[in-house]
Amino acid sequence: MFEIAELGRKLSKEEYREVLPQLRTDLLAAQRELQSADFPVVVLLSGVEGAGKGEALNLLHEWMDARYMHAHALGEPTSEHLEHPEFWRFWMALPPHGRIGLFVGNWYTQPIIGRAFDKMGSGEFERSLARIKAFEKTLHDDGALVLKYWFHLSEDKQRKRLKRLRADPDRAWRVTKKDRRFLKHYGKLRRVSAHALRETSTGETPWTVIEGGDTRYRNVTMARHLLEELSKHLRRRKVAPQKVVAPSPVEQRPVTILDQLDLSRKLSRPEYRRELERWQGRLAVLAREAWEKKVGAALVFEGWDAAGKGGAVRRMIRALDARQYRVIPIAAPTDEERAHHYLWRFWRHLPTPGKLSIYDRSWYGRVLVERVEGFATEDEWRRAYYEINEFEEQLSDFGLLVIKFWLHISPDEQLRRFREREHKPWKQHKITEEDYRNRGKIPAYQVAADEMIGRTSTEFAPWTLVEADDKPFARIKVLETVCTRLERALERRKK
Amino acid sequence: MFEIAELGRKLSKEEYREVLPQLRTDLLAAQRELQSADFPVVVLLSGVEGAGKGEALNLLHEWMDARYMHAHALGEPTSEHLEHPEFWRFWMALPPHGRIGLFVGNWYTQPIIGRAFDKMGSGEFERSLARIKAFEKTLHDDGALVLKYWFHLSEDKQRKRLKRLRADPDRAWRVTKKDRRFLKHYGKLRRVSAHALRETSTGETPWTVIEGGDTRYRNVTMARHLLEELSKHLRRRKVAPQKVVAPSPVEQRPVTILDQLDLSRKLSRPEYRRELERWQGRLAVLAREAWEKKVGAALVFEGWDAAGKGGAVRRMIRALDARQYRVIPIAAPTDEERAHHYLWRFWRHLPTPGKLSIYDRSWYGRVLVERVEGFATEDEWRRAYYEINEFEEQLSDFGLLVIKFWLHISPDEQLRRFREREHKPWKQHKITEEDYRNRGKIPAYQVAADEMIGRTSTEFAPWTLVEADDKPFARIKVLETVCTRLERALERRKK
Repeated sequence: MFEIAELGRKLSKEEYREVLPQLRTDLLAAQRELQSADFPVVVLLSGVEGAGKGEALNLLHEWMDARYMHAHALGEPTSEHLEHPEFWRFWMALPPHGRIGLFVGNWYTQPIIGRAFDKMGSGEFERSLARIKAFEKTLHDDGALVLKYWFHLSEDKQRKRLKRLRADPDRAWRVTKKDRRFLKHYGKLRRVSAHALRETSTGETPWTVIEGGDTRYRNVTMARHLLEELSKHLRRRKVAPQKVVAPSPVEQRPVTILDQLDLSRKLSRPEYRRELERWQGRLAVLAREAWEKKVGAALVFEGWDAAGKGGAVRRMIRALDARQYRVIPIAAPTDEERAHHYLWRFWRHLPTPGKLSIYDRSWYGRVLVERVEGFATEDEWRRAYYEINEFEEQLSDFGLLVIKFWLHISPDEQLRRFREREHKPWKQHKITEEDYRNRGKIPAYQVAADEMIGRTSTEFAPWTLVEADDKPFARIKVLETVCTRLERALERRKK
Repeated sequence: MFEIAELGRKLSKEEYREVLPQLRTDLLAAQRELQSADFPVVVLLSGVEGAGKGEALNLLHEWMDARYMHAHALGEPTSEHLEHPEFWRFWMALPPHGRIGLFVGNWYTQPIIGRAFDKMGSGEFERSLARIKAFEKTLHDDGALVLKYWFHLSEDKQRKRLKRLRADPDRAWRVTKKDRRFLKHYGKLRRVSAHALRETSTGETPWTVIEGGDTRYRNVTMARHLLEELSKHLRRRKVAPQKVVAPSPVEQRPVTILDQLDLSRKLSRPEYRRELERWQGRLAVLAREAWEKKVGAALVFEGWDAAGKGGAVRRMIRALDARQYRVIPIAAPTDEERAHHYLWRFWRHLPTPGKLSIYDRSWYGRVLVERVEGFATEDEWRRAYYEINEFEEQLSDFGLLVIKFWLHISPDEQLRRFREREHKPWKQHKITEEDYRNRGKIPAYQVAADEMIGRTSTEFAPWTLVEADDKPFARIKVLETVCTRLERALERRKK
């Protein structure tokens, strides 16, 4: 992996001076074109200490327009980072469309150092690499240009460099404890890095190893590569076919998993009152304990229009302290959100430990409304199942519960509720012509919901299907499920 | 202040049941109207422990639509909060237009508790109150509805309440150490609170004290008041006159402070080279020290089109590590930013300690382009001087340097540079018809710049006027100024 970067390649002063003006002009021109493009550029600058990654970072700021690039050095996580799943800080640092994000400390830093210094076992290391691959694939699939540079220096060169620095009184301060420690463990670091690079050099987001011995050579090599890849990507995205906005029509309404639900289930008024009091009381106690023990949860409510999502949520929050939860309505994304991957806005507002986020509609919009209405291409919604499972697994690994409800009603019951809304003055704002038109798409939504439930019911984030023709029955089932999940999580925490 | 809230007022169960349905319907209707309004609602729920603020918070969530309200309990600052000026966390928590933000822990919490328990001196307390008043005025002036509720309980009632709770095995856990401590110091807390309430009960954002002894009474009283104020505000904003988009034409070009600048100042090529090397070297050392000592700065670049802001910034960042600074171009606000006070987006991206934010244009747009082009009303830009000084004072108090440059060139030099841009292929993108048209507004901009410099040159954030007809001279003056400011700050830090 690194042998090709130990050949002693150099660039003379004259060559450097000759190529630089055109290179800089071209870089600026490409960056200008990027500004109006529909993708971001993510550049990782990694490698051996002293091999030039910091210098490369500064040069890019000087050679290009620093106003449209942003540097990140994400090394040790801060206390705010630790309140979120591991990748939260990387998601939050991602550049929007048209901008360049440069990452010196990045998602490779902790795993490689952790593994090399034996703070991370081999299994954990492999899982880290798998997660990184999934993350980079997600970015790539969404159109991002991901460039990964590894600046390399042989052990011998590294030793000579430190010696040279120490001998120079003006620069001796640059030799840190870390440098010495890294040199001492050079062999182990090299092996671990080589493994990480090999494992994560996919066809879509490969590593580029750059020989770091000669300043001029390494700078020009990196800049040329970046320019070439950026230009190629700009051309590629330009000729990319327009989004296919063709929702596939469903002729025959197929039998789905939702048809198996017994929609006749109901509760009598006295049963409902008794159960409501019982479960709300139970939830009040459990939620308080969850808050203290820092058990948080993301609660997702999906289902047909008029299925009673709002009513179920209201019965639930009556048992909660408003400082603990937040109800998040998912409407059209803002323009900042549109300039990022569709999952970015959900990463943005995750509950912190002990808190509850209640999503009224959610990231599942991608595989429901966006699929059916043709707002997402088939490629986009098909890969979303994987992206969503990966997302929810990260929440779950971090200790957040993911509790998902699909509130199901029959088409007849929906029609009855629409009509009822029209006749109650305080509900009229909830019903429009659009709602009636959407009823024509019931079979398509049914197919989408069915596939969604099949593909995203995982052991860490199972769907709870709720028979909701009878509102009391549905509300109790929701309350009971939340209580059970919290209870189990709190018990696990005790062990 | 609190006597009127010790009258023992109550509401019977029957009355409560009678008024509640209509009250809730009306609250929901008003909230629905708010959703499309152009202002946010900020509700403070403060007061004595156990007087009902927590319950009021929960009730509002239940009675209104919880999806469009957000609760905040901002008590002790977190480590992320401590990396920013005190009010940063309040700015960040402000609701956007159409939403309701509810603050249990808020900007009064720390000052009142700090003063009552003698952790804060009297002078510091008064300054806190003055800052709070300025903050609330800023929100009010921008159209926000600010409602401040103080829930009160007499010492006697408070004592009885705790006794009652302790006697009940199911609720004894609710009596915390804090409750006991607060009761012990009731008198002092009452005096300090009364002072704070009196001092901050302005005509625009007065306090409403609510008697907290009876649950039904206090809930209905608060909800009714909120409904009434919200309805009034909705009506008021509806009949508010449309923005006056009338930039006042300037007939006669007046003599301004900028005319005093000697634009013939220049540096020879050899002088420039020597000085550039000298000051860049100096800056590199100072910036590194500032990073270590956590001295951060906000650098503002304003000035005429083609005055050389970009070139001056580039000469500066060449001496810096890209991980320390960020160049922030100020373009049109995003839709999330438009739904907040115009200063919100600058609060959003403040440098943390040790970091440098370099603003290419800035919050001064309000009193320059927005004033001249008529995007801001006269009221808006006139009060902006005060708001900006207040903002910069907070940065300065927190330890951030505020370094502001106005790069000044003559109209003739500007024309020469525009023509030059047209003839250099790599600069053509920088020049449009618009630029030439804007030259007709030079007198108006001159007046605006002059007033801005006069009104916002403060001891903590002075303007540096830069003679920029000669680019080398301007760049060196910028570098020298930054060095001097950093140097002085580092020396002060040593003392």
